[in-house]
Amino acid sequence: MKRVAVDGSMSEPMDYASAGVDIDLEGSAVASLIGALTTSVRPPGTPGAPVDLPGGFGGLIEFGENLLALATDGVGSKLQIATSLKQWGGVGIDCMAMNVNDLLCVGAEPIAFVDYVAVPKPDPAVHAALGASLAEACRQARVTLAGGETASLPGIVTELDLSGTALGWLPKGEAITGEHLAEGDVLIGLPSSGIHSNGYSLVRRIVEHSGADYTQPAPFEATHPHRDVVQWQEGVPTLGEVVLNPTRIYCDPVVDLLQAARGDASFDIAAIHGICHITGGGLSNLLRLHPTLGWNIDTPLPVLPEFVWLQQTGGVENREMYRTFNMGMGMVLAVESEAAPAVLAWLQDRMTGVAMVGHVTDEGHGVKHAVEGVEFSHY
Amino acid sequence: MKRVAVDGSMSEPMDYASAGVDIDLEGSAVASLIGALTTSVRPPGTPGAPVDLPGGFGGLIEFGENLLALATDGVGSKLQIATSLKQWGGVGIDCMAMNVNDLLCVGAEPIAFVDYVAVPKPDPAVHAALGASLAEACRQARVTLAGGETASLPGIVTELDLSGTALGWLPKGEAITGEHLAEGDVLIGLPSSGIHSNGYSLVRRIVEHSGADYTQPAPFEATHPHRDVVQWQEGVPTLGEVVLNPTRIYCDPVVDLLQAARGDASFDIAAIHGICHITGGGLSNLLRLHPTLGWNIDTPLPVLPEFVWLQQTGGVENREMYRTFNMGMGMVLAVESEAAPAVLAWLQDRMTGVAMVGHVTDEGHGVKHAVEGVEFSHY
Repeated sequence: MKRVAVDGSMSEPMDYASAGVDIDLEGSAVASLIGALTTSVRPPGTPGAPVDLPGGFGGLIEFGENLLALATDGVGSKLQIATSLKQWGGVGIDCMAMNVNDLLCVGAEPIAFVDYVAVPKPDPAVHAALGASLAEACRQARVTLAGGETASLPGIVTELDLSGTALGWLPKGEAITGEHLAEGDVLIGLPSSGIHSNGYSLVRRIVEHSGADYTQPAPFEATHPHRDVVQWQEGVPTLGEVVLNPTRIYCDPVVDLLQAARGDASFDIAAIHGICHITGGGLSNLLRLHPTLGWNIDTPLPVLPEFVWLQQTGGVENREMYRTFNMGMGMVLAVESEAAPAVLAWLQDRMTGVAMVGHVTDEGHGVKHAVEGVEFSHY
Repeated sequence: MKRVAVDGSMSEPMDYASAGVDIDLEGSAVASLIGALTTSVRPPGTPGAPVDLPGGFGGLIEFGENLLALATDGVGSKLQIATSLKQWGGVGIDCMAMNVNDLLCVGAEPIAFVDYVAVPKPDPAVHAALGASLAEACRQARVTLAGGETASLPGIVTELDLSGTALGWLPKGEAITGEHLAEGDVLIGLPSSGIHSNGYSLVRRIVEHSGADYTQPAPFEATHPHRDVVQWQEGVPTLGEVVLNPTRIYCDPVVDLLQAARGDASFDIAAIHGICHITGGGLSNLLRLHPTLGWNIDTPLPVLPEFVWLQQTGGVENREMYRTFNMGMGMVLAVESEAAPAVLAWLQDRMTGVAMVGHVTDEGHGVKHAVEGVEFSHY
């Protein structure tokens, strides 16, 4: 992967690697960790026995007539912007979203959450802001905050780190596994609220090089019909407010959709073939859902204005943008074509901006997109 | 709390505060976070509804006919010693132990675990060591590793941070809540394997001031009949090996004890009135189990040699030692007196060094101990 020096000029196109993120090295490290793991000691049929699932958004285990799912993730370098602006009101929501949105992908309803806060030194003001943010996150995700840990680690962290773990459940036999995905399935896109919680190494680098000021009005029109920007001051949204806009939590409407599909809706849970949380890796996340099928996004959701500005300002190539950011679509559902109109209508009644964005193809394992150059053949 | 300068001479007695840990500030920060939280949106009787429990070792939620429990914690500054020695073989076990031992305290059986690894830069060698350590931890705790996250956060962490979350379950109505604790209950102590995962700011400070070398043989006889020291090289145990000895995971024998008590053992689960994991705060953790009763440790377990050396070398007062370290006892069970002989015998058959260490009193909310000066009236 191409690397440019950290002080590379703005005339060079930027990419995620140049922002200091070495995806190959990360992959190799993760592979090393996974390679050292062994199979579970918990035999099939006992509580906690592992359930194999492709894609791996959430880890599933057996629990009697049900399955339980765990997801763990952190907010990442978005925290550095929040800390530099002393605005932690959204980071609890980001942390929650990264986890519960992963649980939704396997068809689980999130029910509980625990947070892990690491700081060089405790600061009651910071922790109060985190508590308020986590409380709002629990409300949005409809989960119980079942515990948390605040660690003071002055020799390990230089500023706030925040991560968490979400627990969800679903009836056995109703996991969304991707195994029923088929050519012709309709892709339904759910709009994102902004950059969410991925790609911030690149965001920070572009903003830094541009000379833009997070505390000043955003250097673009930030209004968009599919989302609100959470502001901490009056006036037009600042760049910081747009960039730190909390990640959308998709429990509402996806949990209700799953329950309706398992209940008396006109569509069945079996018609929902796949759910994909668009996180780091952007649209290439779709490739995690199935080993051979293709994904054609021919009518994408509108791109949010911050992505347009980031791309222009950083001179980032199309493909790199869609591999790093959600570009306006934070979640994708793949639905059997006959049920798709009903599922689409159901979702559109509950969330602005939901639309059909494409379909599943049998033209090989890859993602194609209406925007030139945006193609992925591996995650 | 007394504070001495970081460059204070060894002639001053050391304590936890002088090692840079401000317990009051941490408490105030945690209170700020908790104060900002709100009640759960999940109503009683639904999956995920919170279950109130004094003590708070593990967060309990409803799940049909069962309760689920979550615990989240990290390894803390013990990691700094592991990283400085490039020996990460035990830290996965430490991480697991800190969490599953908390779950045992509410009577839950741990079934699954997820880890969160934050590093400045991925390193396949480190991650392979962590994976192996987590695999061994899963074996010892008998849980499924249901997922994990490896985050590269060069702007936030300067070296490895490791935390995790454990999930457990128990039948509804069988939580160990402390509410049945009564005067005369017998305290049964389970031996620790070493310093476990608390008090390492003080450990590091004492070792640093002493001039002792972690890579050299421990400057004391480290052998003890109640534990083995895990070594990464031949010969007498080094100071580093003793100090990094992995935290004991008490699933074996406590999970089996709980199952026997719920099954066909001669003692009933209702006879086990309280279980306490001795973590940060040392013996004062006992006070979390009941609001008014007292705890009299008149026949304590033998102190492990590393604690004797740390106390002498650091000139640490008795009370401070027992408030910071487990001193040789990592878990305490409070058992109804009639059932106590059977429970004690059952445990002694399965773990070396288990002994009756004292009893519950009605002489006021406090901990008394055979060692002079060791008294606690608050956690």
